[in-house]
Amino acid sequence: MKIKHHETLEDNYLRKFLGKLETNSVNVGIIGLGYVGIPLAATICTTGMQVLGFDIDTNRVDEINAGKSPIRHISSQVIGDMRLGGFSATFDFSRVSECDVVIICVPTPLTKQREPDLSFVVATMNAIAPWLSKGQLVALESTTWPGTTEEVLGPYFHNAGLSIGRDAFLIYSPEREDPGNEYFSTRSIPRVVGGMTESCLTAGVALYGKFVDKVVPVRSTRTAELVKILENTHRAVNIGLMNEMKVLTDRMGIDIFEIVDAAATKPFGFTPYYPGPGVGGHCIPIDPSYLTWKAREYGVHTRFIELASEINAGMPEYVVSRLISALNANGKALKGARVLALGIAYKRDVDDMRESPSVFVMEHLTKWGAEVAYSDPCVPVFPEMREHHFKLTSVDLTPETLAEFDAVVLLTDHSRFDYEMIISHSRLLLDTRGKYRGCSAPNLYRA
Amino acid sequence: MKIKHHETLEDNYLRKFLGKLETNSVNVGIIGLGYVGIPLAATICTTGMQVLGFDIDTNRVDEINAGKSPIRHISSQVIGDMRLGGFSATFDFSRVSECDVVIICVPTPLTKQREPDLSFVVATMNAIAPWLSKGQLVALESTTWPGTTEEVLGPYFHNAGLSIGRDAFLIYSPEREDPGNEYFSTRSIPRVVGGMTESCLTAGVALYGKFVDKVVPVRSTRTAELVKILENTHRAVNIGLMNEMKVLTDRMGIDIFEIVDAAATKPFGFTPYYPGPGVGGHCIPIDPSYLTWKAREYGVHTRFIELASEINAGMPEYVVSRLISALNANGKALKGARVLALGIAYKRDVDDMRESPSVFVMEHLTKWGAEVAYSDPCVPVFPEMREHHFKLTSVDLTPETLAEFDAVVLLTDHSRFDYEMIISHSRLLLDTRGKYRGCSAPNLYRA
Repeated sequence: MKIKHHETLEDNYLRKFLGKLETNSVNVGIIGLGYVGIPLAATICTTGMQVLGFDIDTNRVDEINAGKSPIRHISSQVIGDMRLGGFSATFDFSRVSECDVVIICVPTPLTKQREPDLSFVVATMNAIAPWLSKGQLVALESTTWPGTTEEVLGPYFHNAGLSIGRDAFLIYSPEREDPGNEYFSTRSIPRVVGGMTESCLTAGVALYGKFVDKVVPVRSTRTAELVKILENTHRAVNIGLMNEMKVLTDRMGIDIFEIVDAAATKPFGFTPYYPGPGVGGHCIPIDPSYLTWKAREYGVHTRFIELASEINAGMPEYVVSRLISALNANGKALKGARVLALGIAYKRDVDDMRESPSVFVMEHLTKWGAEVAYSDPCVPVFPEMREHHFKLTSVDLTPETLAEFDAVVLLTDHSRFDYEMIISHSRLLLDTRGKYRGCSAPNLYRA
Repeated sequence: MKIKHHETLEDNYLRKFLGKLETNSVNVGIIGLGYVGIPLAATICTTGMQVLGFDIDTNRVDEINAGKSPIRHISSQVIGDMRLGGFSATFDFSRVSECDVVIICVPTPLTKQREPDLSFVVATMNAIAPWLSKGQLVALESTTWPGTTEEVLGPYFHNAGLSIGRDAFLIYSPEREDPGNEYFSTRSIPRVVGGMTESCLTAGVALYGKFVDKVVPVRSTRTAELVKILENTHRAVNIGLMNEMKVLTDRMGIDIFEIVDAAATKPFGFTPYYPGPGVGGHCIPIDPSYLTWKAREYGVHTRFIELASEINAGMPEYVVSRLISALNANGKALKGARVLALGIAYKRDVDDMRESPSVFVMEHLTKWGAEVAYSDPCVPVFPEMREHHFKLTSVDLTPETLAEFDAVVLLTDHSRFDYEMIISHSRLLLDTRGKYRGCSAPNLYRA
């Protein structure tokens, strides 16, 4: 994309912004200090730019200012180094007036009716609106429906008397964090950036280019918004397809994990996805529904997304039905049975519990009258959650503790589990992750 | 998988078979000399084993024996070399009695009601049944529902007085041909093999190991059958998802090709698939329906497959609706319009017309009253097809011929097309392949 150069007001603010970037004299505000904001702040700090973190959670702000990391895969050492470099956190949103750049990394969950809940984004905009001023760039990183930046954020600029692209810049750049991924970091994962105008795009590409190895400019904020949703829709649908296949192959007496492994030997045209007890995390179960909601405005039904959501959301109950059947084969009812859930984080080797299918499995088990316990090396105490309540701590896995349970259900395949001990000492083991492919132990069941 | 060694009748026939393989003194019969059988025969011939080809099409048999290749991407030079090495073709199925190995590569299409049509497989088995004898190995390569080898082929052995795994061997190994793929050949594409018994598997792995670089043994013929269907189901569903997305993004005024390209910059968790005018070839539109049919026996509905089939099958009509809209924007009706279809093969750079969506588009255009012509460098004359009849030859693409048409529809993006000339000289160009991403020519429309 080429930008015509007339000497205009627009160029004036853009030139100033690019000049400040060049000399690293840009102050960056990051709103939302969680799974996305903290790694982003850490990455920007390494460039020498001044970073100020904002969060409404005053405990979190105090913790960070005391040099303590609020998330597991960022060490307190990193936070300490950031503090030494001048980073601090605040809950005083008036300090947005000190920032040349404001990057919004707040959650975008779903309501109970599974519709987009933009309340954190809107609250953020309400909080910063009085402090927006000429020359600033605002970037939204939260996953959301195509049109959000333009339709929800845009009006705040107009109301503040700012002209987007002329004297202020508005962009969208979807976060692509993958907690626990040891191969890619915030810096090395390419960044998609869309701007409300060409000047916005130029400013946004220059900004992200300071701390990300590769920036991918796209035509519009709507395009950038949809890119992120498509990425996670792809995953939701592919996992959904494998979950549907699992239900079928279980009936056929064929092992779906063997099928996928063998199909994956095809060197083109196939990418392996595996079934499991459902989908979790803040992306896959949520993001696609943002598009479903927006699509209705265009009279379009996103049928793949809806099918994937339905099938994936049904997997915890399917796991429970398989457990009932396995117990029944041993002459036992689920009611009164002692069941140990292995792994309650939503995926391997993280402590993130958001939307974890393990928790849904545990709730179904409880409803059926089972006595539920869990073991998870990453989650020593069952955390406070908005929707789920278990007063439990992680059971230490030993031959003795395993033998106390009528059934053990492997839900999250953490690498720190001792799988040989688990199969050797469980009375009945239900594997939802294909961890025991090829194993023919008589106490092993598959779901 | 380990095989126990007692000195049994079974071992006796297996040992003889393996011994013959070792000395290359195995005679291989290949039934069905088409897209799968010919490259397979060519590959086996390179090992020095004797190969005899079978086909019911006497013209094809004569052609091959005269050294002429029946398929475009295998040259007649290759057939000539095979003939010199002793290869010949026949329609006399009694000569199966000369073969130690019989590999079945016949088509497995769908009936008009989209149910599995195994008539070619059954006819083959009926033709070879009288000539089956002890020590032989029969391999099925045709894509089919899980259970076919056991349930359809198995009984022929029992009826012939043969005991599978003891004195005869029955295996399933799905073909993975990809015509036009310049990176992988029959030899270099790993081969999945499933056997009816462990001896069958041992014999099958040894056989394919003679001419394929990597053999992947799986637990059963049913597993191997499902592997192939899963591979193509994965593609059908992912293309279907992108086609559904295209319909939505067209309404939103967002370019789906730009979205997929940008999403593909994510270095993990995303594999790009692109939308198009539908799906073609003998695999993607057909194979998944084989599983749908078999799943009913288990009371399971393959909803992803059915959704993908429906959406993909609806794309030719969608393309026509976009053309109607583009013509309408220029004040023209489709009735009476002269329309040029660019590319009628089912995919880029092949001459294969099976299930080509271009042909469905052409039929819809004809029904709407358009005057249809086509241009395809790979298909000079519109071929005889079972279901489709066009008496047409390929139009030479020149600035003059292009300008004669009211609309040009790009359906198959052959690399030999001169895309700059096409966009420069078409009055109206509808691009269904995203070939003109980022182009803003006023005569360009997208579908």
